[in-house]
Amino acid sequence: MTDRIYTAGLVVIGDEILSGRTHDKNIAQVASWLQVQGIRLSEVRVVPDVIERIVEAVNALREANDYLFTTGGIGPTHDDITVDAVSQALGVPVIIHPEARAILEKYYTDKGGLNEGRLRMARTPEGAELIPNRMSGAPGIRIGSIHLMAGVPHITAGMLDALTGTLKGGAPLIAETVGGFIPESEVSGLLREVEKAHENCQIGSYPFFREGRVGSNFVIRSTDPAELDACMAELCKGLEEAGFAFTPGGI
Amino acid sequence: MTDRIYTAGLVVIGDEILSGRTHDKNIAQVASWLQVQGIRLSEVRVVPDVIERIVEAVNALREANDYLFTTGGIGPTHDDITVDAVSQALGVPVIIHPEARAILEKYYTDKGGLNEGRLRMARTPEGAELIPNRMSGAPGIRIGSIHLMAGVPHITAGMLDALTGTLKGGAPLIAETVGGFIPESEVSGLLREVEKAHENCQIGSYPFFREGRVGSNFVIRSTDPAELDACMAELCKGLEEAGFAFTPGGI
Repeated sequence: MTDRIYTAGLVVIGDEILSGRTHDKNIAQVASWLQVQGIRLSEVRVVPDVIERIVEAVNALREANDYLFTTGGIGPTHDDITVDAVSQALGVPVIIHPEARAILEKYYTDKGGLNEGRLRMARTPEGAELIPNRMSGAPGIRIGSIHLMAGVPHITAGMLDALTGTLKGGAPLIAETVGGFIPESEVSGLLREVEKAHENCQIGSYPFFREGRVGSNFVIRSTDPAELDACMAELCKGLEEAGFAFTPGGI
Repeated sequence: MTDRIYTAGLVVIGDEILSGRTHDKNIAQVASWLQVQGIRLSEVRVVPDVIERIVEAVNALREANDYLFTTGGIGPTHDDITVDAVSQALGVPVIIHPEARAILEKYYTDKGGLNEGRLRMARTPEGAELIPNRMSGAPGIRIGSIHLMAGVPHITAGMLDALTGTLKGGAPLIAETVGGFIPESEVSGLLREVEKAHENCQIGSYPFFREGRVGSNFVIRSTDPAELDACMAELCKGLEEAGFAFTPGGI
């Protein structure tokens, strides 16, 4: 029996990533979080702060996946246009969400009160729910399968935490690693054969250079723990027969 | 007179990025390098080690941009399928590139010689040139506007270095930053007005939390140095009038 596989797309929104000014940290944290939920990150697109480009990416990835996540562009300034883009993609109007407005009014009570910019953060596509933000006032937004999150990584981390366990996923993809000072180019045939013999496993090979020496970590991924163990045993046997020292867990 | 704008797309290939195992470092380094060449990174797609998905992303981004870069999937193992995917996208056969073969033969002379896996790294789409790799044996590959680079960031860095100055670009996008312990939500109106008054400038607002305080850096980008200076002067005047302390260069 093969479990249904659940997938997600991620749209990272922001000129600052495409200019190289900011090093993205959201791809890795969303990817790791999704793994634990039993959902596979299927594709990421990084697009600029241009409404048509966001709409295009949102529509492509929401249609191809069970879930869509976005990061960035939900703050108070003129370059924060994710809510407008997602509303346009869905064909629904932008509204001021009463609950979001109440949260922001409370948050800014002792910080000068609501103003035009701050009120922008209460805007949502019509029909949306809020994702709690424990770090700062402005909430994330959920509408259907789409989740709009902050660009600042630690705020996004809090929003992911709030979403933990709320999304339906499949069997989580588990992974085991083995590594050593083994040039991947000397074991490429072995890797291919072992992967072919275990249909439900994928083997990834990740070379590195360390202490002036060449090595690799080999990662086996599967949703089936027994198959994963059998695949790992066969790979280790092959490495041993080829005369290589290796370390379970990787190096 | 408006200069022609040159754009590039980037396809990051690899299950290890989508699983969260590896934190991508290539997006930021390719983005920064392109800025210096006068080329704008227009979109990034991260896709898995699945040939159809790579073909789709390569075709979409090469058609929409002047240049296309890929990172990952050009090593010796079974999951390295970027050459196959790009050849398929272009409708050309995969060949063993004689010059690449010679490079690899020389590189592996004292490392056990060429084998089936290592010879995979001499495969290119027909009609390709090589991009020198000063770090390890296997070269990058250039075919038309497409540049296939390594997944390991320091090898990609060397390949980018080898390509410096070889691509036609436009006027580089320059940026100036000003920052302070200024909540962006208190100056969103100012930012919008200043940007509107300077057609060739974009203003980005990047909030942070530091030392228990809220602040922002404001980045103005333009290809026109004079317009950029004028825009920055007006923004600083506005911040001063609103009573905020700020630091040129950002904080």
